[in-house]
Amino acid sequence: MNPDADAVKRVPAAELQVFIERACAKVGIPAADAGVIAELMTRADVNGSDGHGIFRLPQYIRRIQGGAVNVRPAIRIANEAPAMAVVDGDNGMGHLVMRFAAETAIRKAKSAGVAWVGVRRSNHAGPAALYAGMPLAHDMIGLYLAVGNANHLPAWGGLDMLLSTNPISVAIPALEEHSIVLDMATTVAAYGKVKTKAQRGETMPEGWMMDRQGLPLTDPKRADEGFLLPIGGYKGYGLALVFGILAGTLNAAAMGRDVVDFNKDDTTPTNTGHAILAIDLAAFGEVEGFKRRIDTLIRDLRASRRMPAVAAIHIPGEGSQRARAERSRLGVPIAPALAAALDTLAAELGIQALRS
Amino acid sequence: MNPDADAVKRVPAAELQVFIERACAKVGIPAADAGVIAELMTRADVNGSDGHGIFRLPQYIRRIQGGAVNVRPAIRIANEAPAMAVVDGDNGMGHLVMRFAAETAIRKAKSAGVAWVGVRRSNHAGPAALYAGMPLAHDMIGLYLAVGNANHLPAWGGLDMLLSTNPISVAIPALEEHSIVLDMATTVAAYGKVKTKAQRGETMPEGWMMDRQGLPLTDPKRADEGFLLPIGGYKGYGLALVFGILAGTLNAAAMGRDVVDFNKDDTTPTNTGHAILAIDLAAFGEVEGFKRRIDTLIRDLRASRRMPAVAAIHIPGEGSQRARAERSRLGVPIAPALAAALDTLAAELGIQALRS
Repeated sequence: MNPDADAVKRVPAAELQVFIERACAKVGIPAADAGVIAELMTRADVNGSDGHGIFRLPQYIRRIQGGAVNVRPAIRIANEAPAMAVVDGDNGMGHLVMRFAAETAIRKAKSAGVAWVGVRRSNHAGPAALYAGMPLAHDMIGLYLAVGNANHLPAWGGLDMLLSTNPISVAIPALEEHSIVLDMATTVAAYGKVKTKAQRGETMPEGWMMDRQGLPLTDPKRADEGFLLPIGGYKGYGLALVFGILAGTLNAAAMGRDVVDFNKDDTTPTNTGHAILAIDLAAFGEVEGFKRRIDTLIRDLRASRRMPAVAAIHIPGEGSQRARAERSRLGVPIAPALAAALDTLAAELGIQALRS
Repeated sequence: MNPDADAVKRVPAAELQVFIERACAKVGIPAADAGVIAELMTRADVNGSDGHGIFRLPQYIRRIQGGAVNVRPAIRIANEAPAMAVVDGDNGMGHLVMRFAAETAIRKAKSAGVAWVGVRRSNHAGPAALYAGMPLAHDMIGLYLAVGNANHLPAWGGLDMLLSTNPISVAIPALEEHSIVLDMATTVAAYGKVKTKAQRGETMPEGWMMDRQGLPLTDPKRADEGFLLPIGGYKGYGLALVFGILAGTLNAAAMGRDVVDFNKDDTTPTNTGHAILAIDLAAFGEVEGFKRRIDTLIRDLRASRRMPAVAAIHIPGEGSQRARAERSRLGVPIAPALAAALDTLAAELGIQALRS
């Protein structure tokens, strides 16, 4: 057995991006859109979102080939007021729809001070932080919510999986420090992490999932037999519910029993809902003063005395920051199973494989 | 020993309200404002928020007498744009300031579709759901965030208590069902619940608090020696941080090391920050259709199959709904220690005591 076959290879971000772009173009996505999708998906990988970047490509392609996703969507504003809009994504790739929604929120927040854009008829768009982070460059705070694309969570105490891991991301600019970027599922673990564990052949820690008898489930290959645990028990259930209503029900997007499991279905549109809020700092007062207060807060937290065995205090977004610094230099790590899946995809599509 | 001395007595809401109103008036709050405060505080008790209604009255009065709170505030809008405002509470009672802020958000959301109002120089305002619930009557969704008035939470892994239990409340209207009203601290338990346990002489379950060595702390009288645990570990820490920034730092209100512990200090203004978001359903589409979708979601959740030993699926806000139905009829339960504290207050202020 060749020991190298099990090695995690490193692929430069630029190479990943070209690969994704070619794959998207090959299934009929117009060149400009394929470029946007590839850029955002690669950014997810560079930022360390292993379950939300190129890892999802084979699934996206499969769903496009199955007719579940529209490759030439007419993304449009269906309803609007000075500080809000509902975007109809026309079943396009989520990355395209959410970029449009974020840009709409930023534009409206510039005049209204704050703007909320809801989205329906979209698709999986990758990590929440990609979109919450878009307002940062405009000296705005971004807040993003989404309805997950598979229900892995019952009501607290229930057995019917009616809720997804509905995530929240909040991005807050600082002055000299890096931005604070929280990006979290309302479950202890996101389902993408379970899938990554399965693909790597690893077991999950107790507390991520439970089986239908309420016992810990640690084998990610048995994920179908159990459900994810919400953070804080009934509180996480409450958060998943209200975030799902804000991102889904409010926009007439799928929520609850309407959610399509995009892991198991390659033909049905998901009617994915998202929401993004942009808050223009300039409307609230002096921008630099705000950013200085964020710097102070970050430094106070970081300088905290620590519990025994804790090496450092973590600021939300730092892990991503570190991944970005390291992966920009060394490339994105691609585990063997993912590399094999991408090779198969390349062969099927007739595009050049990633170099190994 | 008289067994009745330990009995929890029931006091009609109207009587509580008159008591609060008289106490407020006695320390210099103008009659109209005293009426508003008494109405909101009593509503908190009727809704079952035992740690946030009349329970807080002795402390509020003590802080007013200590000069920490302004009894005749000029509450005003300091900054505004079409969809936002920053309200300066002039250090008035939080109930007055937040009512003003919620009304401002509702008014602006009617024209802008969505509005966000931040607040600074306010004070403790009682339960979050009081304010998140105000937009409901206008067919709007309400979302409320606040910076808590005492830091009981360190950064995850830290020992310095730089964060409070910064709560979130989201209120969502239904058609035939009761509104969904989530109201939760970002910690496993709110500090008010710890105080209630202490006053009742009860112990806390493991998981609410930890001591500085990381061991479970279950004696609420030793609460000063430990800290509250965030939901989901680092995730709850992240939520407490970003909610605190949105409610505090964004409005130049206290956050982090600036937070004044209002349990220990009767003379220093707290510069409390809050935020409220109002979302006008009519801007997003057909209002009745939205409410019907919420009814369906509630019914689907409630009809879920249940885990063994689970009697019913809980919808956020139902507990409050049940308390309201029961307490409106039977009166608000007042525990002996609270009754004694209110008797002492009545004697000090020279107002009529609650009947026992």
